[in-house]
Amino acid sequence: MVDSVKAIIFDVFGTVVDWRGSIIDELNAVGTRLGVSKNWDDFADRWRGGYHDGTQSFRDKKREWLKADTMHWERMHLLLEEFGLTDRLTRDERIHLNKAWHRLTPWPDSVEGLTRLKNKFVIGTLSNGNNGLLVHMAKNAGLPWDIVMGAENFQSYKPDPTVYLGAVDLLGYEPHEVMVAAAHLSDLNSARKYGLKTGFVARPDEFGNSGVQADLVANPEIDVSATDFVDLAKKMGA
Amino acid sequence: MVDSVKAIIFDVFGTVVDWRGSIIDELNAVGTRLGVSKNWDDFADRWRGGYHDGTQSFRDKKREWLKADTMHWERMHLLLEEFGLTDRLTRDERIHLNKAWHRLTPWPDSVEGLTRLKNKFVIGTLSNGNNGLLVHMAKNAGLPWDIVMGAENFQSYKPDPTVYLGAVDLLGYEPHEVMVAAAHLSDLNSARKYGLKTGFVARPDEFGNSGVQADLVANPEIDVSATDFVDLAKKMGA
Repeated sequence: MVDSVKAIIFDVFGTVVDWRGSIIDELNAVGTRLGVSKNWDDFADRWRGGYHDGTQSFRDKKREWLKADTMHWERMHLLLEEFGLTDRLTRDERIHLNKAWHRLTPWPDSVEGLTRLKNKFVIGTLSNGNNGLLVHMAKNAGLPWDIVMGAENFQSYKPDPTVYLGAVDLLGYEPHEVMVAAAHLSDLNSARKYGLKTGFVARPDEFGNSGVQADLVANPEIDVSATDFVDLAKKMGA
Repeated sequence: MVDSVKAIIFDVFGTVVDWRGSIIDELNAVGTRLGVSKNWDDFADRWRGGYHDGTQSFRDKKREWLKADTMHWERMHLLLEEFGLTDRLTRDERIHLNKAWHRLTPWPDSVEGLTRLKNKFVIGTLSNGNNGLLVHMAKNAGLPWDIVMGAENFQSYKPDPTVYLGAVDLLGYEPHEVMVAAAHLSDLNSARKYGLKTGFVARPDEFGNSGVQADLVANPEIDVSATDFVDLAKKMGA
């Protein structure tokens, strides 16, 4: 069923990296430095929300296409204001903080699993994050991508078919030769609809204590279901 | 002058890999297997010519944008016909031969120089070749790109400013933060015109005995001039 797969392209936030834990850690460090105590979990979740709102506003044709960096920058300032921290950070410090999204920590199995998969497959990103962010993240975290691709290449966002099928075309493959790997069933079921193969990787801790429930079990239409990236590599024969 | 550079993006054919030597070797191997002796140097040069003609036809608005793979495929068949070899190769063998362009050999200093440069800079491709070709070439040759980009991302070809400035935007930098490295002064002088920094790397053997003269000395406007990629790394402080 997945013997046709030549490339695996990965959702990134939540699937490859622990965005929530990483962002909370960075915010905690800022708080410690400033000597303030805040609900950083809430800041992190609502910062992430700015990204979802940005992609939705584009889908609703209310805003133009924006880089994730820009959406993060805008939402960060709203939150800094609300948290009473606007004047506590210099512009350089705010630029640095916004780049926390370039420094997200991979899940413990990500680098090992990707390194194994890279021996057998073309591996790449397929993220709604912007390419610059994805490149910096890869350098910082040692993610061994063959190709960095994202929504930015197609000036749209997942789950628009343009993004999935654009990536397939850019790789020079047919849809059934490309697998999307993600921790989010909505992403996978969209990819499946356009003829791509699908690999689910459970990331039960993505949303921490936020109350958001991670997907834990794949629906039967998903081609491969794995507990982590090393398990995915094993199940893909890599 | 080049202290602002954060990313270096490379022309590939001729600059990173020895396309002519590699293609002649592959053709020689085919000839040996078939027991025929032909002017493979001529075949190689005119095969490469199909790519130049394809990009020119697009600029002249005579043809749509095409992947290099497609231009290679078309020209290969014209040449196989002319060389009397059409019926000597199966379809699978012709597919394999066309992918000789995915298997080009790097110049001896390319991998070492890129590996050094990668420690200090974002390194990527900026080729008129298609992304799938560039990814396969990188895997085959061990080229450690942070990002594979090419004309295909922008549905145009160098020296169109869309390609240079599109790459700068995709990386999230300003033009003066990105250097184009190439063995071809025309490529560099175009990049310079749009505000990018430029690094010349001499590849005196690119065109072999074909009569085409390689660029040997950079014009004074080029920011950095190097004898090979290791020398470029040294001159860029990497």
